[in-house]
Amino acid sequence: MAAQPVRREGREARLAKRARKPLFDPCPPGQPGGRYKPLTDGDLRRIYTTAQDLLANLGMGEVPARLRADLLAAGAKDNGAGRILLPRALVEEAIDKAAKRFVLHGRDKDRSIEVGGDRVYFGTGGAAVQTLDIDSGLYRPSTLQDLHDFTRLQDTLANVSWFTRCCVATDVPDNFDLDVNTAYALVRNTTKPVATSFTLASHVAPIVHLLDIAAGGPGQFSERPFLKAHISPVISPMRFGEDAVDVVYECIRHNIPMSCITAAQAGATAPATLAGFLAQSLAETLASLVMVHVIRPGFPMVFSNWPLVIDLRSGAFCGGSGETAVLNAASAQLSNWLGLPSGVACSMTDAKAIDAQYGVEKGLTSMAAALAGGNLIYESSGMTASLLGASFEGFVIDDEMHSHIYRALRGIEVTEENLGYDAIVAAVLGEGHFLGGQQTFDAMERDYFYPALADRDAPRTWEAGGATDIWSRARTRAREILETHHPAYLSKAQDAAIRDAFSILQADA
Amino acid sequence: MAAQPVRREGREARLAKRARKPLFDPCPPGQPGGRYKPLTDGDLRRIYTTAQDLLANLGMGEVPARLRADLLAAGAKDNGAGRILLPRALVEEAIDKAAKRFVLHGRDKDRSIEVGGDRVYFGTGGAAVQTLDIDSGLYRPSTLQDLHDFTRLQDTLANVSWFTRCCVATDVPDNFDLDVNTAYALVRNTTKPVATSFTLASHVAPIVHLLDIAAGGPGQFSERPFLKAHISPVISPMRFGEDAVDVVYECIRHNIPMSCITAAQAGATAPATLAGFLAQSLAETLASLVMVHVIRPGFPMVFSNWPLVIDLRSGAFCGGSGETAVLNAASAQLSNWLGLPSGVACSMTDAKAIDAQYGVEKGLTSMAAALAGGNLIYESSGMTASLLGASFEGFVIDDEMHSHIYRALRGIEVTEENLGYDAIVAAVLGEGHFLGGQQTFDAMERDYFYPALADRDAPRTWEAGGATDIWSRARTRAREILETHHPAYLSKAQDAAIRDAFSILQADA
Repeated sequence: MAAQPVRREGREARLAKRARKPLFDPCPPGQPGGRYKPLTDGDLRRIYTTAQDLLANLGMGEVPARLRADLLAAGAKDNGAGRILLPRALVEEAIDKAAKRFVLHGRDKDRSIEVGGDRVYFGTGGAAVQTLDIDSGLYRPSTLQDLHDFTRLQDTLANVSWFTRCCVATDVPDNFDLDVNTAYALVRNTTKPVATSFTLASHVAPIVHLLDIAAGGPGQFSERPFLKAHISPVISPMRFGEDAVDVVYECIRHNIPMSCITAAQAGATAPATLAGFLAQSLAETLASLVMVHVIRPGFPMVFSNWPLVIDLRSGAFCGGSGETAVLNAASAQLSNWLGLPSGVACSMTDAKAIDAQYGVEKGLTSMAAALAGGNLIYESSGMTASLLGASFEGFVIDDEMHSHIYRALRGIEVTEENLGYDAIVAAVLGEGHFLGGQQTFDAMERDYFYPALADRDAPRTWEAGGATDIWSRARTRAREILETHHPAYLSKAQDAAIRDAFSILQADA
Repeated sequence: MAAQPVRREGREARLAKRARKPLFDPCPPGQPGGRYKPLTDGDLRRIYTTAQDLLANLGMGEVPARLRADLLAAGAKDNGAGRILLPRALVEEAIDKAAKRFVLHGRDKDRSIEVGGDRVYFGTGGAAVQTLDIDSGLYRPSTLQDLHDFTRLQDTLANVSWFTRCCVATDVPDNFDLDVNTAYALVRNTTKPVATSFTLASHVAPIVHLLDIAAGGPGQFSERPFLKAHISPVISPMRFGEDAVDVVYECIRHNIPMSCITAAQAGATAPATLAGFLAQSLAETLASLVMVHVIRPGFPMVFSNWPLVIDLRSGAFCGGSGETAVLNAASAQLSNWLGLPSGVACSMTDAKAIDAQYGVEKGLTSMAAALAGGNLIYESSGMTASLLGASFEGFVIDDEMHSHIYRALRGIEVTEENLGYDAIVAAVLGEGHFLGGQQTFDAMERDYFYPALADRDAPRTWEAGGATDIWSRARTRAREILETHHPAYLSKAQDAAIRDAFSILQADA
């Protein structure tokens, strides 16, 4: 069936309507997820029980001394062969006491979001080492300038609900300078909730000083922390990483909320069987939770269980597959079932070009993870090339895609008014159609998302307009934003104070 | 987190593995859907009750005389004002007696599929009037040659489970010749289940004669019908269309299974409120079911409730949105809840180019409809431009996309063996990884889908290979198929017999 366009209004009236900005966003971030349940209740229990068995009987290896002491004090056992066993009661206690919902603060309070429950938010995860050059259409190493540009670009995009630095400034060789200049790029260019990584625990305190300056004075940042840390304290399979654990202690000391990320890879650092993968990966993320619990019960941690898939032909990570979709959906369901704030990684792609592969892989993985109720969906915006790349055009395309996903998540409000029995009868017995009625106008403003980048023209109109693809339209849009959006989120005094204290490599605005 | 590729095997071993054809398809068509439920049980009941009220109290207009008589004989009422009311008991009876599962036969029995239950199949719907020219990348009117080419192209694609003629041969002006030559293109070029439309009831008997020749002799087709009819007997809102109803009678007489398609458009021929839309559209599809029931109880009909969305700024149909995703998912859920074989339309796009918009819109709508358990997902392959266009490259890209969707649908088998507690313990205490183990190899063959068109290379490799996009790779693949796949599904004698009886406009192979 080829649907026939309905064209009963004049061209001018249509253009006027099209130009009118919608009164409000019909599907803002934070729509409810969870209506897709890939696992049965029995599946959930079997996976959880296996994870508990792994923690209680196999336990964790390479536990740093300080953490070992804290764990043993809380009831963990040393098996005498280099592994610390985490008994079921300790794991249950960590889950019971965990922060179930908490706020990720924006420096602008209106941009804060609450993590947990059934709310779904898309955001970024980092950390690409290459940028898809907007001019050449090819990849090159990411720079500090890129990071500034990406940060101010996403500052205008409603569906990036928090911004983890999406790329690594590979032109900053010193690790400390890198961490400092990354934090500076974030606070200079956005007031959304932000996130970064700390290479070493010793970097945390100085960067908190930088964040205090941005927050308005000493101690201000920790009162209302607007930056969270991305940390992978567990190295798969089933051991801790000392540097990362040190960063955890230091973040907790400074009241920096954390995404403790398990990033096991199927068939390499975790089983290739999907159920076994989920069991191990759940155990590992629970190990992070127990770690946080024994340091400070209830400290905010996003339970970030990211099942990563590798292409077993090549051994390379790949993010745009049906396996990624179902594994991350299952991870979200598992975390939500435990009542924990779930973080997953989806809306990823292995494509290098901004092409149909890009769209297919992002569209299907983001839909699955969102429907399953992932509270924070990382890596969802602007990332390309199996997370090796970041793209300006990708950011603006993904922003529009996520509105479609949120529109679907919002669901269908089945009320007497929306069922509108009387309105149907009146239309059928009256004019024989629903065009132009008040109910139609109201629904049009309230219930429908109207994309700006997507092409909905007839083929002839499209050809007359240059037969463009969305990559080129997104390039134009990204350039417009980059040319016009130069936010000044640091005062001159704040900027100067930061430059006095740190080696800031980016020129003044 | 940028995931690091795991590379522990030699290049040759990797290439050898990559070249090895997987032993079998890990995610063939017919995977189970239904784990995504956009509507609550209360929502389902309220929509169904409203649909029943519409049928019982408002009823259907413009009922053709023969159907009117059959309906009244079965318990319908004439309201004296030109409308036939379908009481609740009659609707319930039609649902109770409806064919819940039935086989769509392929001329090749191995290609038959069973419609109903929780099985999901992607296929086509037609009918594009323009073809995206594989050479120019621009649109032109579709021709009979295109239809032959599309039919033999899809014949090689595993994830087109049935083939409804995807385009209209606009170079065949006579309606009878068009219907005949369309049927000929189908039987000549594929042995899958096929489908078409009949412009007039008088075309059915002659075309059954053509199908009999293809089936092996008089009466053979109706014994095991391998073609179904796409019919829209209801014209929204809430009236019958006489020509289409005549076709229904004739198809039933010849034992041709039917997709009775409701194709209402939100805000035009149905309410713009999503709940009201679903209530009316459900009522209309139930009116088709009651029609079939009073003609021949239990006759195979795919309950094809396709909620179509228009962009209310322009009045044009658009198929690639979050609204389309959630409405068609809800439609599938509603039909399945009634126990009826559900048909929805998804995996559609408004894009003209084979670009990221194409991928996003297809990826997100096909995932939603499939997870919701649409038994037949029409319009899912090769269609572009809001169903106005069809694309060779699109067909091969969509085929791969649907493998990802099926892989996600297949879900996660949570068994003791797949949980693999002992294997995890052995790996952790042994080599510290899972690479190269027997469990990994087994899972690699059994559980992972390996795409052929999608690019999973590193950026440098991609650039060295010409920095291609998937549109160009799909173009190469489609050309290869079109150059090499010339099936001979009609014997010379069959072909000659058809040419003797009909005006066949396509040259001999």
